[in-house]
Amino acid sequence: MNRPKIVIVGGGFAGLNAAKALGRLPVDVTLIDRRNFHLFQPLLYQVASGGLSPGDIAAPLRDVLSRYKNIRVLMAEVTGFDPVRSRILLADGELDYDTLILATGAETFYFGNDGWEANAPGLKSIEDATRIRSRILSAFESAERETDPTKRRAWLRFAVVGAGPTGVELAGAIGEISRDTLRSDFRSIKPEESEILLLEGSPHVLPAFKPDLSMMAERDLINLGVRTRVGVRVTEIDDSGVTITGSDGSERIEARTVIWAAGVRASSLGQKLATALGIGVDRTGRIGVGPDLSIPGHPEIMVLGDLAHFEQDGAPLPGLCPVAMQQGWYVGKAIAARLEHHAPPPFRYTDKGIMATIGRHSAVVDVGFARFGGYLAWLAWLFLHLMYLVGFRNRLLVAMQWAMQYFTFNRGARLITGATIERDGRFDS
Amino acid sequence: MNRPKIVIVGGGFAGLNAAKALGRLPVDVTLIDRRNFHLFQPLLYQVASGGLSPGDIAAPLRDVLSRYKNIRVLMAEVTGFDPVRSRILLADGELDYDTLILATGAETFYFGNDGWEANAPGLKSIEDATRIRSRILSAFESAERETDPTKRRAWLRFAVVGAGPTGVELAGAIGEISRDTLRSDFRSIKPEESEILLLEGSPHVLPAFKPDLSMMAERDLINLGVRTRVGVRVTEIDDSGVTITGSDGSERIEARTVIWAAGVRASSLGQKLATALGIGVDRTGRIGVGPDLSIPGHPEIMVLGDLAHFEQDGAPLPGLCPVAMQQGWYVGKAIAARLEHHAPPPFRYTDKGIMATIGRHSAVVDVGFARFGGYLAWLAWLFLHLMYLVGFRNRLLVAMQWAMQYFTFNRGARLITGATIERDGRFDS
Repeated sequence: MNRPKIVIVGGGFAGLNAAKALGRLPVDVTLIDRRNFHLFQPLLYQVASGGLSPGDIAAPLRDVLSRYKNIRVLMAEVTGFDPVRSRILLADGELDYDTLILATGAETFYFGNDGWEANAPGLKSIEDATRIRSRILSAFESAERETDPTKRRAWLRFAVVGAGPTGVELAGAIGEISRDTLRSDFRSIKPEESEILLLEGSPHVLPAFKPDLSMMAERDLINLGVRTRVGVRVTEIDDSGVTITGSDGSERIEARTVIWAAGVRASSLGQKLATALGIGVDRTGRIGVGPDLSIPGHPEIMVLGDLAHFEQDGAPLPGLCPVAMQQGWYVGKAIAARLEHHAPPPFRYTDKGIMATIGRHSAVVDVGFARFGGYLAWLAWLFLHLMYLVGFRNRLLVAMQWAMQYFTFNRGARLITGATIERDGRFDS
Repeated sequence: MNRPKIVIVGGGFAGLNAAKALGRLPVDVTLIDRRNFHLFQPLLYQVASGGLSPGDIAAPLRDVLSRYKNIRVLMAEVTGFDPVRSRILLADGELDYDTLILATGAETFYFGNDGWEANAPGLKSIEDATRIRSRILSAFESAERETDPTKRRAWLRFAVVGAGPTGVELAGAIGEISRDTLRSDFRSIKPEESEILLLEGSPHVLPAFKPDLSMMAERDLINLGVRTRVGVRVTEIDDSGVTITGSDGSERIEARTVIWAAGVRASSLGQKLATALGIGVDRTGRIGVGPDLSIPGHPEIMVLGDLAHFEQDGAPLPGLCPVAMQQGWYVGKAIAARLEHHAPPPFRYTDKGIMATIGRHSAVVDVGFARFGGYLAWLAWLFLHLMYLVGFRNRLLVAMQWAMQYFTFNRGARLITGATIERDGRFDS
């Protein structure tokens, strides 16, 4: 008797945990990803701000899964789906499945203004992170060489668009870089005079958090030198700055470094699958799934993580790491039930809380029965992120680098890499 | 009274040590580099083979020099020289000097076959290293997906051109990756069946070493699965392999991964300076310097490191890291003597020996009064490289990663990064 063939597309939190859960079942699993590593996205902002190296937050998928002999890893680009013949299409071949698990996550979204990408990179990949790192560090280099005071100020002004957790973490990290890390590195400029602007459309930073935590976060950001501008919409981004529009009209901000942390949408593979199936997607490109995470009418196709629109208690689950992980684990239970010809139990997300870090000694945590900020929240954030960081080696390395960063205020991975073509005095990547 | 203005171009071993030596003298120093970091080149092959992250072997120049208040670091591209007006030309300005110290090192050289670069990258920069890392790892990925046995073997065949220390280290590292690191990571291929070819024009590997050490190195390479082909010249490199010519005719080697470790020449800025001065350069582009490392007739211009042709005991000094470091230190003595209106003492290189590592437990060391290989040589190599690695943080991080790599046979920084465009089933970078 042939063992069921399960193909997982995507090695993020959902796909990787689904693979691990299936590693002990009598099934043949193929995990496909176009990258050869799992990326620990919650710490990507630390690569973007020079605190960690890419290798510290990435684990080779083959390595993580090598002990499961029923799992094959394939580095390949999925180009489409043929649900009638139960096949996925690759750039150079096809692969058939009995069960397809799609977990390709989300990508940066500019709300239709794709031209903004060149001047305001988003933060979803290792390459995004090293690009942002190069931009931040190059801005200080350009400021050091600039003699015109107005132009110099534009190099020392940083705008982060979007005050969700990623935007807050990035703005806080730039604050620390300018106030501590680079303090004595320059001769013509004072990095601590940098302006860091955090732009947000909602009335508060961290809009997913309760107002009291948002206020705490805002106060801590101000202490790090970050100016928050809430209730404003970005209406233009070009290579010299940002235009924002609020209740009191439009305003131009001259900032040579702009980072986009405002929006994501579901990966475009979701739309391809939906088209192949003749179904629709939601406003952000997500595919609606039933109680067992399969597409209604297609029990053989499950969708997980940021790509799935799963309704719980009347609202879709947010695109959070714990949601993706729990959905990954659930796949093991669902497939095990099916192997024994039972109906899978319905998936239910257990919300253990949300947290965001702002900087040294500062974070906010909401665990439902308690909400707190400050030092204790920061320790909780530190502990949790280390615990979840995939692979023993990375955990130890990251802990060590954090400890050194903490005691020395230094950040070791401050490299400007990539092509260093000088354009308008700017070292571009 | 104005303090003398000293401009150093290049933050490698020569330039950085010159800057440090000048940091305690009553002079104003500007160190110019087009990168913002000093690169510890002797360990670059470990980044190329996934053992270390770029951040581990690079130290921000501003950070290393921040304590010297008389040193300014400038990230800029030097485009030319105006020796008559004592100025160096930048892409966006000029800078005048009283003393110019040129230490821009060497670059990969294909002996006139620049077209080979695309298919056989050299190893001089961080970007080179991550590109080679991506190629090596992608070759195993492509082999895993390839069903044609001949094509698959071509993916599992690696050719390293040039058996100097870099070539030997790279070939040994690929041997370890295929025999140990990736052993249980694949399902369709056996990485340990990879062929690694080390191609060398001289009659022995490590031609700069005594024959007994070359033979030891060759034996250890064979134990790591590396086949050495000596006395052969590479006459063609294209995207499917290498053609070599030896005493018994030409031979074609089908290898999809080729790495160039065969030749370097002096940085092209040397030629620009020579042209501006109306002097010549040697066969490999180096500028001849006198006993005090200055250009004859131009006491205000010193040339150091791989860019300098310095004759000692009837032969030019080789392009080695210790030569560059000692010449950097010497600059401090020479400038101090000039400040007191003395003639500088002549430079003399103290040869403390040469060493090369082959892999786990294996290296060769020649310290003049003694020559040895094996475990002891490997420990000596390890100790020395850690001691010289710039900056306390990097030393600790590298030591830890080496220890983990040693005990687990694993390499953590196995990332395929850069653009992952699929070409002919190959994930290119």
